[in-house]
This record gives sequence, C-alpha cells and structure tokens, in this order.
Amino acid sequence: MDRALRLLARSRGLSRVPASAPGPGPGLSPSGASLRLLRPPNTARMASQDSFRIEYDTFGELRVPSDKYYGAQTVRSTMNFKIGGVTERMPIPVIKAFGILKRAAAEVNQDYGLDPKIANAIMKAADEVAEGKLNDHFPLVVWQTGSGTQTNMNVNEVISNRAIEMLGGELGSKKPVHPNDHVNKSQSSNDTFPTAMHIAAAVEVHEALLPGLQKLHDALDAKSKEFAHIIKIGRTHTQDAVPLTLGQEFSGYVQQVKYAVTRIKAAMPRIYELAAGGTAVGTGLNTRIGFAEKVAAKVAALTGLPFVTAPNKFEALAAHDALVELSGAMNTTACSLMKIANDIRFLGSGPRSGLGELILPENEPGSSIMPGKVNPTQCEALTMVAAQVMGNHVAVTVGGSNGHFELNVFKPMMIKNVLHSARLLGDAAVSFTENCVAGIQANTERINKLMNESLMLVTALNPHIGYDKAAKIAKTAHKNGSTLKATAIELGYLTAEQFDEWVKPKDMLGPK
Amino acid sequence: MDRALRLLARSRGLSRVPASAPGPGPGLSPSGASLRLLRPPNTARMASQDSFRIEYDTFGELRVPSDKYYGAQTVRSTMNFKIGGVTERMPIPVIKAFGILKRAAAEVNQDYGLDPKIANAIMKAADEVAEGKLNDHFPLVVWQTGSGTQTNMNVNEVISNRAIEMLGGELGSKKPVHPNDHVNKSQSSNDTFPTAMHIAAAVEVHEALLPGLQKLHDALDAKSKEFAHIIKIGRTHTQDAVPLTLGQEFSGYVQQVKYAVTRIKAAMPRIYELAAGGTAVGTGLNTRIGFAEKVAAKVAALTGLPFVTAPNKFEALAAHDALVELSGAMNTTACSLMKIANDIRFLGSGPRSGLGELILPENEPGSSIMPGKVNPTQCEALTMVAAQVMGNHVAVTVGGSNGHFELNVFKPMMIKNVLHSARLLGDAAVSFTENCVAGIQANTERINKLMNESLMLVTALNPHIGYDKAAKIAKTAHKNGSTLKATAIELGYLTAEQFDEWVKPKDMLGPK
Amino acid sequence: MDRALRLLARSRGLSRVPASAPGPGPGLSPSGASLRLLRPPNTARMASQDSFRIEYDTFGELRVPSDKYYGAQTVRSTMNFKIGGVTERMPIPVIKAFGILKRAAAEVNQDYGLDPKIANAIMKAADEVAEGKLNDHFPLVVWQTGSGTQTNMNVNEVISNRAIEMLGGELGSKKPVHPNDHVNKSQSSNDTFPTAMHIAAAVEVHEALLPGLQKLHDALDAKSKEFAHIIKIGRTHTQDAVPLTLGQEFSGYVQQVKYAVTRIKAAMPRIYELAAGGTAVGTGLNTRIGFAEKVAAKVAALTGLPFVTAPNKFEALAAHDALVELSGAMNTTACSLMKIANDIRFLGSGPRSGLGELILPENEPGSSIMPGKVNPTQCEALTMVAAQVMGNHVAVTVGGSNGHFELNVFKPMMIKNVLHSARLLGDAAVSFTENCVAGIQANTERINKLMNESLMLVTALNPHIGYDKAAKIAKTAHKNGSTLKATAIELGYLTAEQFDEWVKPKDMLGPK
Amino acid sequence: MDRALRLLARSRGLSRVPASAPGPGPGLSPSGASLRLLRPPNTARMASQDSFRIEYDTFGELRVPSDKYYGAQTVRSTMNFKIGGVTERMPIPVIKAFGILKRAAAEVNQDYGLDPKIANAIMKAADEVAEGKLNDHFPLVVWQTGSGTQTNMNVNEVISNRAIEMLGGELGSKKPVHPNDHVNKSQSSNDTFPTAMHIAAAVEVHEALLPGLQKLHDALDAKSKEFAHIIKIGRTHTQDAVPLTLGQEFSGYVQQVKYAVTRIKAAMPRIYELAAGGTAVGTGLNTRIGFAEKVAAKVAALTGLPFVTAPNKFEALAAHDALVELSGAMNTTACSLMKIANDIRFLGSGPRSGLGELILPENEPGSSIMPGKVNPTQCEALTMVAAQVMGNHVAVTVGGSNGHFELNVFKPMMIKNVLHSARLLGDAAVSFTENCVAGIQANTERINKLMNESLMLVTALNPHIGYDKAAKIAKTAHKNGSTLKATAIELGYLTAEQFDEWVKPKDMLGPK
Repeated sequence: MDRALRLLARSRGLSRVPASAPGPGPGLSPSGASLRLLRPPNTARMASQDSFRIEYDTFGELRVPSDKYYGAQTVRSTMNFKIGGVTERMPIPVIKAFGILKRAAAEVNQDYGLDPKIANAIMKAADEVAEGKLNDHFPLVVWQTGSGTQTNMNVNEVISNRAIEMLGGELGSKKPVHPNDHVNKSQSSNDTFPTAMHIAAAVEVHEALLPGLQKLHDALDAKSKEFAHIIKIGRTHTQDAVPLTLGQEFSGYVQQVKYAVTRIKAAMPRIYELAAGGTAVGTGLNTRIGFAEKVAAKVAALTGLPFVTAPNKFEALAAHDALVELSGAMNTTACSLMKIANDIRFLGSGPRSGLGELILPENEPGSSIMPGKVNPTQCEALTMVAAQVMGNHVAVTVGGSNGHFELNVFKPMMIKNVLHSARLLGDAAVSFTENCVAGIQANTERINKLMNESLMLVTALNPHIGYDKAAKIAKTAHKNGSTLKATAIELGYLTAEQFDEWVKPKDMLGPK
Repeated sequence: MDRALRLLARSRGLSRVPASAPGPGPGLSPSGASLRLLRPPNTARMASQDSFRIEYDTFGELRVPSDKYYGAQTVRSTMNFKIGGVTERMPIPVIKAFGILKRAAAEVNQDYGLDPKIANAIMKAADEVAEGKLNDHFPLVVWQTGSGTQTNMNVNEVISNRAIEMLGGELGSKKPVHPNDHVNKSQSSNDTFPTAMHIAAAVEVHEALLPGLQKLHDALDAKSKEFAHIIKIGRTHTQDAVPLTLGQEFSGYVQQVKYAVTRIKAAMPRIYELAAGGTAVGTGLNTRIGFAEKVAAKVAALTGLPFVTAPNKFEALAAHDALVELSGAMNTTACSLMKIANDIRFLGSGPRSGLGELILPENEPGSSIMPGKVNPTQCEALTMVAAQVMGNHVAVTVGGSNGHFELNVFKPMMIKNVLHSARLLGDAAVSFTENCVAGIQANTERINKLMNESLMLVTALNPHIGYDKAAKIAKTAHKNGSTLKATAIELGYLTAEQFDEWVKPKDMLGPK
Repeated sequence: MDRALRLLARSRGLSRVPASAPGPGPGLSPSGASLRLLRPPNTARMASQDSFRIEYDTFGELRVPSDKYYGAQTVRSTMNFKIGGVTERMPIPVIKAFGILKRAAAEVNQDYGLDPKIANAIMKAADEVAEGKLNDHFPLVVWQTGSGTQTNMNVNEVISNRAIEMLGGELGSKKPVHPNDHVNKSQSSNDTFPTAMHIAAAVEVHEALLPGLQKLHDALDAKSKEFAHIIKIGRTHTQDAVPLTLGQEFSGYVQQVKYAVTRIKAAMPRIYELAAGGTAVGTGLNTRIGFAEKVAAKVAALTGLPFVTAPNKFEALAAHDALVELSGAMNTTACSLMKIANDIRFLGSGPRSGLGELILPENEPGSSIMPGKVNPTQCEALTMVAAQVMGNHVAVTVGGSNGHFELNVFKPMMIKNVLHSARLLGDAAVSFTENCVAGIQANTERINKLMNESLMLVTALNPHIGYDKAAKIAKTAHKNGSTLKATAIELGYLTAEQFDEWVKPKDMLGPK
Repeated sequence: MDRALRLLARSRGLSRVPASAPGPGPGLSPSGASLRLLRPPNTARMASQDSFRIEYDTFGELRVPSDKYYGAQTVRSTMNFKIGGVTERMPIPVIKAFGILKRAAAEVNQDYGLDPKIANAIMKAADEVAEGKLNDHFPLVVWQTGSGTQTNMNVNEVISNRAIEMLGGELGSKKPVHPNDHVNKSQSSNDTFPTAMHIAAAVEVHEALLPGLQKLHDALDAKSKEFAHIIKIGRTHTQDAVPLTLGQEFSGYVQQVKYAVTRIKAAMPRIYELAAGGTAVGTGLNTRIGFAEKVAAKVAALTGLPFVTAPNKFEALAAHDALVELSGAMNTTACSLMKIANDIRFLGSGPRSGLGELILPENEPGSSIMPGKVNPTQCEALTMVAAQVMGNHVAVTVGGSNGHFELNVFKPMMIKNVLHSARLLGDAAVSFTENCVAGIQANTERINKLMNESLMLVTALNPHIGYDKAAKIAKTAHKNGSTLKATAIELGYLTAEQFDEWVKPKDMLGPK
C-alpha cells in the first residue's frame, strides 16, 4: 500500500504541472532520469530530432525517430490518423494506467513462468510509464481504432524498447524483450484497453474529482454554519417569498454536493471491475486460470484501490455501461454545481442594481472605473464546466450504446470524455472553492433591508388580526410603496408595539 | 389551392380542440358524419364496443371490434406492442398526412389505370382520414416496427374498409377495395412512412410553429418600439454595467425570434422532398416512371406547400437527416426562447427584493396574502418547453444516426419527437405572447431609480475631470453608499450643474 | 402493508388498461362506483357536458363543467396554458401519487387536530384519486407553472368537492371541506409537488421498470444456459474473431441487464426522500414539528415502499438531482438495451444474406412473398425506446440544472420525462422478452458452418507446426477461398487426423 | 484578397503541423523570425525560462516570465483558473482570429485618428498573432471568465508588448503602445470575443470542415459511379430485401454528404455577422459611427470571407444562437457520417462470417495469424468523432440557452466545442476518404452469390405464374435451403429457360 501511494503520488505530481501556467505542460517536457533505473534514458540520443532508425512492418519500411521508444505500429498510426492535433492525444491518465497494468501483468506472468530478467525489466519500464516519465513517447490521438489497439501497441513498443535499453540491447530489435510475446503476454488490446480505462477513471475520480468535491462541500458547510443566523428573504419562482436563513439556503448546496460524492462513489463498484484476463473476445483464450484474478489483485495493490476481476468478461469488453454510469453521476453533479453557481452569482449581483445579498471575492482587477463591479468569474468557469460535462455525457452515451457483438469500439472516445469530465469538475470545484466560496461574505445590511421591506411578512399577522385585514395591509402597502408596519398602523389595525411583537421573521424559520 | 387551404383548415380545426380544455381531445371523440360521404360511417354499429368481427392473418384468427375500420394487421400490432399506453399513439398529424398521401396516390394510380370507382372511393375515404374524421381508428403506438409498416397497414385497412363501406361492401372482405393491391398500390411502407413524416412535419411547422413564432416576434417588436425611450441600466456577467434602452434590450429578443423563423425556413427545402416512389429500397420497383413526381405534385396541390419528389430515394429511405436538421433548427429556437424567458422573469422579479424593472401580467390569483407576487408562470411553461425540445433533439439525433443499409428504422420515434417539438414551441410561443409579452409593462420608476443610482455612469466624467478623479468619486460613493453626484460635489470636483450637464445616460446609447 | 399492496394493485390495474388496445385508455373511461364510498360519484350529472356551475376567483367569473369536481383554479389554468393537447396532460401516476400524499397528510393532520369528519372525507376522496377513479377530473397539461401549483390546486379542488359531495354538500361551496384550509393543510405546492414526483417515480420504477427488466434478465439468462454448448465464431470490430459459445455471448447481455437493475436500485434511496413538511421554501413554516416524519411514514405504509422525510428540505425543493440521477440510471439502461437489441437483430439478419445465426420469432405476417423474412420489429421498438430515453434524459438534465434560489421550476417537465422513460423501458422490456427473446432459436447449422469455415481457428496450430506455417495456411486458404484443413493437407504440413485432433474450437473457450 | 489568402494559408500551415506526428505540436514550437518585422522577437531572452520581470496590477506584484509578451492580467488568470491543463488552452484558431480582428481595428482606428506609428506597430504585431507566430504567449485555458475577457487582455498585452519591442521600448512599460488605450481602442471584451468566435468558426469551417466533406463527397461519388452496374441484394430492417445496385447504395451516401455541405453553408450567414462595434452592452458606447461597418469590411478583406457587421449588436453579445445553429448543422453531419461509416463496416464485415460485400483497404498490419482480417479502423475513428460531435452539440446548446441580460457568459466553452467539432469532422472526413473510401473494392463474387441466392427475387415471377405459386416456390426453397430456380423447376412450375428469362435482377432496379 505504501508503494501504491508512492506510485500515485509521483504519478500525480507529474500530471499536476501547473494547469494553465506558463511553460510546457505534461507530456511535453523531457522528464529527468531516475536513479532507480538500470540505465537512464538515452538523453544524448534524444537531443536530436533529425535522426531516425528504420523499422519494418508488413507494409514496408518506416522511419522511427531515434530518440523515441515507440516503434513501427505507432508510427503507422500517426500516418493513418491525422485527426485533431496534439490536444487530441490519448489522455495521459490512460497511458499511466497502462503502465500500472503492464507492470502487474509482468509480475503475474513471472509467476506463470516468464523469465525473471525479462519480467523485471518490463516492470521497471512499466513503472516509468506509470510515473509519467515517458509521456513524450505516446503521440497517438484518441481518434484511432475504436478498440485502442494502437495505443496498446504504443505502450508495448515503448516498454519493450525501454526494457531492451536497460538490458543493453538495441532499440527496435525486439530482443530480448518482445512487445507482443513478452510485454503483451496473456493480454489482448481487447481486454487491456478497457482495463486501462477503468484504472484511469478510478484514479482520476480519486485524485481529482472526489477531493475537489469534498473541498467544496466543506467550504459550503462552513459558510452554512457561519451564516446560520442571518435571516433573509426567500425566493421562489425568482419572486419574493417567506424568509429563511442564509445558512439554510447554503445547507441546500451542502446537501447537493454531499450527494454528488455519494452518487459518484455509488458508481465505482462497476468501475473497479477489470477486464484483464478476457483477452480477445472475453473467453480468456491464451491466458492461464487465475491470471485474471491475480492481475486485478496486483493492480489493486499498486493503486490502493479495490479493483477486482470482472465477473463477466464478455460484458466487460462488449459494453462500457460502467463508464456511462459514472458519466451519469458526473452529469448529475454538473446539474448540482450549475444550480449552486447560478444562485451565487445572482445573489451576488449588483453592486447597486442586482440582488446584492452576497459579496463575492474580487480576484481580478475589476473595471478601473467601476468599483464594486466584481464579475463572478469563478461561477462562470464552473457553469461552463457543467455544460461541458453534460455534453461529454451525451458523447459517452452515444458511444456506449453503439457496441457490436464482442467488442465496443468507441473506447478511446468514451474514456477521453469521462476523464475530461472528472478532471474539469474536480479542478473547477477547487478553483471555485478557493477563489470564490471561501471568501463569500454576507451583505447583512442589504439582506436585512430586503427582508424587512418584504410584504410577505404579513403572513405572521393572520392569527392576530385575521386574513382579511392582513391582506388589506399588504395590498395597501404594495400600492403605496410603503412598509407593512406603517400601513398597518395607519389603517388602525394594530400598534407599533404589536407589530414588532407579532412580526418576527425569526419565528418563521421552521415548524412549530 | 383553394382545396388545399380548405383541407388544411378543416384538418387544423380538428386538431385544435382546446388543448388542455375539459373534455375529450382529438382522436377520442367520434366525429360527426359528413354530407359528402356516399354513406355515413356506421354510427349505429359504433355504439357497441362488445361486438367483434373475425378476421384472419397467417397466424390465425383475430377479433376486430365491429365498430372499427381497421383490420387484422392493426389488431396484431396492438397485441405485440403493449408499450406506453394511449399517450404514445402515432401522432394525429402523421395519420392526417397519410390521408393526404393516400389520396394523392389514388389519383395518380387512376391516371395509370386504377379503376376510377375504386380510386374515387379511396380518395373519399382518404380525405376523411386527412380531415381527422377517423382518428378513433388508429390505435397503434409509435413503439412498433421502426419502419412504421404497421401504421401504413392501419391506414390501408381503414381506408379500404371505409371505401368498401361507401361502396356497400362488407368490412374486412377486402372487396372491392383491397388494402394492399389498391390503397397501397405503387407504394411500400418504406417510402410512404417517410413521405407522411415529411408532410406531417411541414404542415405542423406551417400551422403551429411558424405562426406561433411570428406572433411572438411581432409582440416583442411592438414592445421594443414601445420601450424605445426608456433608459435603463445594462447588466453583463449579471452585474451592473453601462446603460441601454429597454427597447434596445427587447430588440435583441426580436432579432433572436426573427432568426428562429429564418432558421426553420432554411431547413424546409429538405423537408419538402418526398420519398414516395422509392418503394421498398429506393429503386422504385413496382412503380411507374413519373409516379413519384406526380404524387409529389398532388401532395403539393393538396397542402399548398412546395413539395417535390426527393432527388435521391435511397437517401430518403435510409437516412432522415432532414428531420435531424429541422430538429436542430428547433433546438436553436429553444435556446433563444429559454434566454428570452429567463431574462423576462429575472427583470420582472420582485416585487420588492428582485430586479423589478418589468411588471408582468398577473394571470392567475397570486397568493391571497402576497399582493404583487406574480409568478412568471408563462416564462416557466416556455422554459420547460425549451428543455423538452433540447431533449427531443437528442432523441432525434440518436435515431437519425442509427440507420442501417437501405432503411432507417427509427422512423416513428423520430417524427413523434419532431412533431412534439414543433407543436410545443408553437403553442408555447402563442401562450407566452398572449399571456405575458403582450401585457408587459415597464416599471419606469424602478428603472430610473436603478439607473440613476448606478455607479458606472461616472464613466461620462472621464473627459471632463480625468480618469483618476472619476475613479475616486466612484470608489468613495461605493464605500459610503452615497450617490455619484453628492460624492462628486462633496469632493469638490464639480458643481451640481456640471454633474447634470455631463452625466447624461441618453448620450451613452450609441456610437458618436 | 396489506393495504399498501391492495392500493397499488388497484391503482396498477387501472393504469394497465391494455396499452395500445382498441378502446379508451386510462384517464378516459368513467370508472365504476365503489361500494366503499359514502355516496357514489354523481354519474347522472356526469352524463351531461353542457351544464356548468359558476365559480369565481379574484379575476372574475368562471364556468366549471357541472360534471367535474375541479374548480376555478383548474379552469383558469386550462385557459392560460393551451399548450400541446391531451397527450400532454399531467401523467396519471403523478395524480395518483397526489392522492396517496393527500390521504397521508389528512391522517396526520387529524392527529394534529383536524376535524375527524373532514379528515375522513378527505381520506376517502384521496383514495379515489389514488385508485385512478377520478382521472377524468385532471385536465391540466404539464406545460403550466413550473412548480406544479396548478396541479396541486386541481387535486385540492377535486378532493375537496368529492369530499363535499360525500358529506352531502354543494360542489364549489368549499364547505365543509376547503381545498386550501383542509386538503392542503400544512402543505404548499412547493413541497407537495416534489413529494408527488418522488412517490410517482418510485411506484413506476417498482411497478413497471424493475419487473420488466427482471423479466428480460431471466429470459436472457435462460437462453444463455440453453445455448451454453453452442460454439460460434466471435466478432470484434464487426470482423471474424476467435470462437466463444452462444451462451457466453448471451451471458454478457445477462450481466448488462443485471447491472441495469443494480443501477436503478442504487438511485432509489434519494428518490425515497420526501419533501413534504418543507412547505413554501423548505423551512416548514406553518407545519408542526413531526409532521414531515409522520407523513413520510404514512406514505411508506400506503405504498409499501421505504419512504423517509428528506434530511434537507431546501435541497428537496430547490434541486431535483435525485430525478436527474434516476434518469441517468435509465440512460445507462437504455445504452445496454440498445446494444443487446442491435446484436440480436444483426445475429438474426438474413435469412440468406445476413449473419443468420439466430432465428427470431415471427410475430407478424412477413412479406407474403418472402418466407423467412422476419423483421426484427421488437428490436426496433426497443431501440427506439432507448433513443427516446436518452433524449428524455437530456431534457431532465437541462431542467435539473436550471433551478433558482429556493425552487426549481421545471418540475412537471422533469417528472413527465422520468415517468415516460420508466414506463417505456419497462413495457418495452416486457414486450421484447415475450415477443422476441423467449422465442429465439439458435440456427446451429449456420453457426457451425460459419465457425468451421473461419480462418482464425488456425491459431490452434501454432504450438504444433509453428507460427510461420500456420500463417501460410491461413493466407493460402483466404486467397484460394478454401478451408484451413484442405489447405493444410495440400501444403503437406499435416494430416487430416492431425488437423482434427489439434483444431478443436471447444478448447478455445477459456483460460487453461 | 491575395493578402487574405496568403494570411490564411500561412496561418493554416502553422496549425497543420502533422496532427499526431512525433514532436511538438502547434503552439509549442518557437516560430522563426520574419523578415518583415521591424525587429525580430527577442529570441535571446526567450532562451531562459528562469528570469522574470515584475509587473503590477491593483492586487499587487506579479512575476511575468521575461521571455513572454503577455503581462499581469494574463499571469493573474493563470493563478486563478487552474482548471484542466494545457489541453484546455484557448484554441489557437481563436487566438489567430483575435490577431485578424486587432489588425483590422488598428487600421480603422488609424482612420479615426490613432497615431499611424502606433497603429502600424499594432498591425504588424497583430499579423504575427494571426499567423500563429506567437502561439506560445497564450497560456490561458477556456475555463476562465465566461466573456473571454482574460483572453482579450492576453491578446492586448501580447500585441502591445510585441509592438513596444518593435518600436524599441521596454516590455511591460505600456509605452508607447498601451494594451487598453491603443490595442483595445473602440473595443470591449464583450464585442471582441464574439467577433473572434465568429471569425475563428468561419475560418475553421472553410479551412477544415468544408474541404474535408467535399473530398469525401467526391470520393463517394466516384465510387457510386464505379459501382453503377454491380447489382446486389438490398437490406431493410437489416434483413434481405429486393435488389439495387451498389452504385445506388453509394448514391445515398453521396446525397447525405452533399446535403451536409448545404446545411453547413446555410448556417454561415449568421456566422458572418460580427459583433465588433457593440462594445460593452451592444450600444457601441465609446466607438465612432461607422467603426463597426469598417472593421467588418477589413476582416472580410483580410480573410476573404463575406463578414458583415451584425444588424443587432444586443443579440450578438447576449446570445450565440448562430453557434448553436452551426453546431446543429454539424450534428446533422455527424448523423450522416455515422450512418455511412456503419454501413461500410458492416458491408465489409468478414472475411468469412460477415456480409463481405466490400473489401476495405488494409492500412495496418492485421493480425499476423488471420489474413483477411481488416479491422475497419477508419470507420471506427469516424464514428467516434460523430459521437463526440453529438456531445459537443449538447454542450453548445446548454451554453447557448443560459445567457443572461446583455451578455452570454459561456463564450469560451461554446467556441471551443464548435471548433472541436469542425476540426474533427473535417480531419476525420479526410482520413476516412484517403485511408478507406478511396480504396474500397466491391467483392463482386460475394455480391453475386448473395444476390443470386436471395429468395425475394421470386417477386419477379408473380406476373407469370401468379402469387400463390411464387410463394410456394419461395417457402419451399427456404425450407429446403435450395435455390429458387431448382425449386421452381422441381415443382414443375416453369423451365430453366423461363426462370432465366423472367428473373432478371437488373429489371428490378427502377420504375417502369
């Protein structure tokens, strides 16, 4: 478990290069060499982009950049799928998940007889992939074969060559570590890619999504308690209604985020099921009895997450309902966050001509000429993310519904969208929490003013002077633009003291 | 053309039984007999629901209610597709469109040699279907075969039996008017159903959708002109911004609705293309050269709409991109209406604690105790409709993307959703116009108050006293909750007269 | 609990009038009088549609049909919301749920002091609503106010008048049973409508959706076992692949449906939470301490479902995440069913030019000229339903994301779509099971032929003659269109006996 | 126009760095210096990433990397919006569009009096932005303020500093070229961002989407003609049906793609409308009369596309219906391409156990052991793209429906998705064309076999021997698995010669 945490922590660190910070991002920077390696990556060779080595596949000769660990099948894919550019590359979490899987498979294959020297080299190379050290070597886009075969081969080639390098062999020679026979042993693209999808999704949920939501929950909860005694006007149909406390209003948001966490967790049991061991069509042809269970256990140990082998491999290859389900939980979360962010920006609207009940933190220079104009930019980023997640969900749904026979071939598109939603929701929740929620202040003066001017406090007079007189007061006050109290006194229905005694918003906040 | 208008007008009248009025709606009430008929529908027989006639199909004996014109294939479908209940029946506009198509086909078939007596009886029976007089005889739900074959046969059976009845024959005898050989002559479900889909969609667009949108456009345009000189605060990011006129604000809505009409009209050319003449797979097997063109021309004459024969029948059977396109235009319209309705409810929020710039008509008793509480119920109905249309669009999209080979088999679902969206948008636009937009009043007192208190009017002082002093005024006023004018004078930067001369919102409404 | 079952059973019976059968459907047939009533519904009066009684609201005089129990506010709504026609009426399950809720509330109100005579009459009238006996009296469409207030008032008016009638009073007099003061006591539209939404959703899930899915699961599971020993070719990327059994293939479907049930059940805990007791904004103003808990307990007892009071009423009124979540579970189910139905129709395609591995039941007369042409109409109905559910889910999502402040006002639209999806999925699952799955037969001759011709069985030769020779056999056989066996012998690589011994598909079905 | 083409061509070239090729992608590679510059970019300074200059905004001190042209507001945004990482950066086409806009605005501002030296420097710097030479200097993600203000300021800062540099000034000094006063003169984020959105969308449509679709159209059309005389079995409901030619089948695809182009072009008129000149709320405050028209004309000249000023600026800022509309056209296109790709992969399924009518090009090494196994990977990439476009469309729809008052604040999210869809569809259409469609071959042997074995050719015998005997032949042949011809002769209904004369598939391909 120690190792699991370490592996994820390192992995995380690399993927968390300041998101939109200046400078190159993940997958683009050459990673430093590790002391743990048998041999460090050949950085000298990497300096040059102009040299190539020649490799072959059955279609002929291919030029592979000499500073890259990938091989012919990867290069072939870059030629056949020129769709969308670098932003469309297979998400790094999938690559890292493959690293974890290939490490686990090598360990289990060693148990079943794979040469320990080879197995060990694969494990070390796979660890580097899992840690994000070889991100530069995965140039393929998601818009490739729908089984993700080419990315599986990209991983096999990189691990094979890196392992060969560690063992002093020649890149591209496939000796002594063969990409298919050794790295992909007992595996098929058809079961490894869905396995990597589930690992990647689970890790992203645990590393980005749930912590982000928890942080937001806690901040909203703190605000709910801080605002527990601020009585304000309620609004239904966007119109004035009876009062509640600002703390009560925020408690609704707290509950929404609490349930968002519940919902996402409820979807995870199916995500924890791994297809590994199903191989080509789900039968497990070419694997050994027990392989599936052992791989799942290894992956669980490496990640610290409760992965198990899928009870039915046919479903695990042919359908990705588990991803549709998880995407659905994130879609619900998006609805919750859209609602919360909308409320907060409207409650903070103004400064003079809006509702003005909340004072939102000012994060950027407002207009130099309009003091108090605080654009609710964090709400805007969050609601844009929510819309994106709703759209991603439809893409995942369409892909999930279109599997045929033994294989769903919308895999790369589906996992891309699931990871996108998880990362965006998690990051945006953190940003929204730190840069908005944590700094929200109640504009108590404004809140009191609106609440006290509100006509529907007249409700409290019903038991004392009767419905008809109360209605008369309210109607007259509305017509004249006067207060309930002044109107009531003017109409001779009660005294100022009686009004103050009977009309107490704080007595309107719950059942009796 | 006269006939076209008459046919549609009558047809419309029947479908426009007060939408949610008490009493039975379309499709449920026995229609009165027409003088034009050779023989009136056998209403005596219709009184009883307990008597049946026996019909046969290749699976055996079936009991057909004796007061119904449909036959064995219709009954068989009701037994095999018990999905969803009466609200899920094939939409009446599709049935009426079939009536129009079958009439047109009979005319053309007569040109090509069909016995005039038979053709004439078919035409009369088909007219009754087109006019909605036989709605009771179409019990099938949309959740049937995806080609709509069973509804085509339902139509064939009803027209055949009604024609037989007119000619004095026996229901169910298929003599002298055979449902397949005569009513369906030169046709196949595969081309008639898409033809009926396009006719139904075009009619609904012209009868419900476009008139509704035009009505809304005109009402908004009138308001835009009425409000042309009311200067108010603008809001960006939901926050206070520089002023515009209320008329300008409404002009944006006018433009949105104007373009909604443009967009829908732009989708119609593909809708006007009819599949009739393609028969089973699009080749036109078993039709005559010229049949397709003549049928389209007849349908055009009957409806007064510019239908033509589809230039490629293979596309017209196998894909329904034209419906996806039309649905997309309605989806855009839904976005427009959602935006407009949201603005209007927020601008009308209050009466005391909202923005309060608009006074919306009060249509229902507000709360008996909260005078002035006008719930923006028409906005709510319209935004709910908008959400539904967005959802319907996705259903249409999924169906449209899933055709295989020579036939898309999501036809009934697709047309149901397209018609649903068209009707809802059209009806809701009318309801929103009549019950909300037409009666909107500007709360000029409130509008002036908010505008004059606004801090960002200080912008106008820049040229006179410089940016720094203007900023100082604004910041101080915001801090102290005072007015720009008072603050400016207090700070000694200008006189009251100067302020009034320099700060003129009406000079901030356009370029110079 | 007995009562619960009885109430639901009766309720169910009424809503289960043969879905698309000839004759009037639910909500349209006058229900028979019950012996349990104090007085039977005034059927004499109901005969006439021409007489009206005059009622008033604050806007003036309204004519209410004398044979209807509803009152002024209902009529007013029919005038203001002419959107969409009778198919757009508030779903009957919502009306029945209101009956259950109003009964429960009356019981609890009696505990808190409501006159037992009045409470008792309300309970009896509410029971009639719950049992579907008064369906004719609910004419309102869903496209009304977004809080469902008008339907709540419709229910209050109907129960009030029916109770008045039982007690011998005059319809419309509001005496001795007042729609607001008595029927709506301790309630608000804002908490009753979401309560009715959750009750309706839970009942529909339990009565239609889960049983339908369970039935489908069991039928697929039986087929999986029946087909356990039929070895067939696998298909990945729609291309020939290594073999599996037909039973294994079906086991994937079984797993999908099993998890569909799991997913839907996982969403229910949030659905079981009831908003009742929150009243206007969630505070519970005007209720008594304990009211919320007692009402939930009564509803639980009446329905036999584990309803509880919502832990946070603010969330329960302002957000409907629970419905978005449930809709998401149904969306995932739709993906599963789309996949299964697609597979089955492709596997059953033919009879000569398709895959032809399955023989689907023939339910309707096929083309009279093409024996063996069985259109997979049940697959088509099911996939259309799946597309609709995906669309409905987007509508629910859009509505769920657009709540503001203390109230989401997309309530009627949201519940309409959730109920639509639940009913369609449940009904279609039953139809698909009974009319397709249960009768599926394996075309073993065809299956064997395809499997034995398959080139990739050559895989089994690798250990015996080596990869290169095996590849040579396969390539040669493909080129010449010959069998593996003949080619292998011809090439002199092995004998017929060796081939038969080494190439055994049944050894390729699992790990070793 | 020459200039326009040149500018776009260069711009294009830069964005077309081999999409998924090895090596750094667009936005990451330092661009070479241009001879046209007054001074080349300070590449010396760029070498170091460790040095910073200090800038200030009203919140305090900020460290700006000394090798970057952006300034304080950009850095501030990177700190406040750590959402999603480098793949989430504002799309390069938006940045380039800003370059075009800023250049146009500078020219027009010069007409209205801006110092020519400053205007000229801005123009040159803006050109570099438009040409993609400064892509490294735009680090902001789309998940920022919903108005895109921060990207507008990023552009202003970069152009200002680059212009300062050209004029020999000091970076960050704002002298002599001020980012707001000069670069943003007569502009606001609120009108520039929507202007850049429309420019970017129009350019992407013309550079990527339409050419890709046209290429696909032409290739399909060529195949349709090539296959004009190959008669094959038709399939409806996925089942065997009457024949058509393979050319006819492809002609349906041709029509779909032809209409896709039509639909996208039909959406462009609204895209060509530019918001520039509307400034803060649409009134055009702080611009000059004529500014809007002149800027649109300049942009039109620079791009060669028919841009005009938007007739209503309020709509142009507050709503983005035009993007929803364009997205809708792409959504329809996605449906078309999904259908075509699905057909092609099923028609090419096999090699032995599928339909096998088409031979698809083999692009990657198939399984080394299964010759003839060609995975339809291009179909898979294309259908994944189609699913993504459907999802993107929902995101755009949700964003488009959620504008409030004078500003829609889902701008960056909306344009990101529109550009994503356009690029993916265009690229995937090219890839699919080049790597699949162009190389499709008809498997005429298989096609003939299936067609000749087909039972429904019996249809042709009806006129000669009557329906009953024809049916008998078909049923018997189906039961016995024999041919129609053999069965017919065996039954004694006709001779071999008669069969050959009467059953001619080529006579079944059209009307008579």
